[in-house]
Amino acid sequence: MNIAILGTGGVGRTIASHLANRGLTVCMGSRSADNPVAVQWASTAGSNASHATFASAAAASQLLFNCTSGQASLAALQSIPAADLSGKILIDLANPLDYSSGSLRLTVCNTDSLGEQIQRACPGARVVKAFNTMNAAVMVNPALVPGPHELLLCGNDPAAKAEVSALLSTWFGWQHILDLGDLTHARGMEMLLPAWISISQALGSYHFNFHIAR
Amino acid sequence: MNIAILGTGGVGRTIASHLANRGLTVCMGSRSADNPVAVQWASTAGSNASHATFASAAAASQLLFNCTSGQASLAALQSIPAADLSGKILIDLANPLDYSSGSLRLTVCNTDSLGEQIQRACPGARVVKAFNTMNAAVMVNPALVPGPHELLLCGNDPAAKAEVSALLSTWFGWQHILDLGDLTHARGMEMLLPAWISISQALGSYHFNFHIAR
Repeated sequence: MNIAILGTGGVGRTIASHLANRGLTVCMGSRSADNPVAVQWASTAGSNASHATFASAAAASQLLFNCTSGQASLAALQSIPAADLSGKILIDLANPLDYSSGSLRLTVCNTDSLGEQIQRACPGARVVKAFNTMNAAVMVNPALVPGPHELLLCGNDPAAKAEVSALLSTWFGWQHILDLGDLTHARGMEMLLPAWISISQALGSYHFNFHIAR
Repeated sequence: MNIAILGTGGVGRTIASHLANRGLTVCMGSRSADNPVAVQWASTAGSNASHATFASAAAASQLLFNCTSGQASLAALQSIPAADLSGKILIDLANPLDYSSGSLRLTVCNTDSLGEQIQRACPGARVVKAFNTMNAAVMVNPALVPGPHELLLCGNDPAAKAEVSALLSTWFGWQHILDLGDLTHARGMEMLLPAWISISQALGSYHFNFHIAR
């Protein structure tokens, strides 16, 4: 399986490196073919690591991780021809965070979500919202946080969710995965972010996760 | 200490009954002095239980729980003369839920919160947001949910938060209380509700709570 990591930030690099280290073929996509961060990453991540534009990375891959920043996600995905997204699983990790006013706000919430916007913009993709509620180090190593804690996900395609659950369990060791239902539940998953940030400030740490005690 | 429970719904009745059973003096407040639910509650909750209007209940009490529905909270609190709120701790449990469109939306979120609206409407009260992220049965009996899990709270008055933490620990047995900071963090606490509802639907249970695994 060839995997496209869309985005060159800390989340994208963490997942890309982890998958390349496992021997998977990983292409890091960005706006330009010569993005210096992507060039640097590919040059140090092994022979199965490469970099390309968003469109070329998607065309070469069967599975996509959207690790772009939330405000850049739609433009990034709309730069990919529909045929190169059609039928492919797109794991959406992005959060619609906006700090431009000096404090946090979400650019979309409550009656819509970034996950739903992405699915509408890319109707042929099989969007699964996942991983947006934790730090990248926890995504690829859930054992970093002791005890049980959950990977939340949602999406409109049950088969895509089942495949994503199996892959994230295999690749990263996720044991507790809670499927919240269709993609409208991305609203709640993205609206967890303000509390996540408050909690990280209160704890002075990013190495935590929500556990649904029951 | 005399306690006012503002609101006659399930949350208010659960907390009022628990505190009256402990021997505390509890007055259930509602819009009218003859609210049948409040009359019925007071008639069965023991000799230290009474009912009154919001204003009379607040006037007779040193500590107030806002257990009204979110859309009714401001009107309820604004029916109380400012002098009867001044310097008193007001624990705000309400969530700004609106199902009128057929699906959930919050009436305020993202750049403001009900907790902050209440503090602005009642500047003399010492508002502490707490308990809005769990079912009433869990509020009064955290042991209903196995293992550690958190009571989140926030507010602008550190002394009020310390007193609330001590009281909720004593009255209900809360061991894990996480102070998120000033009342702007009520945005994140209230924005947890859509995910809370999604999780309750996925689990088929209200008897869970968020634990911050770390």
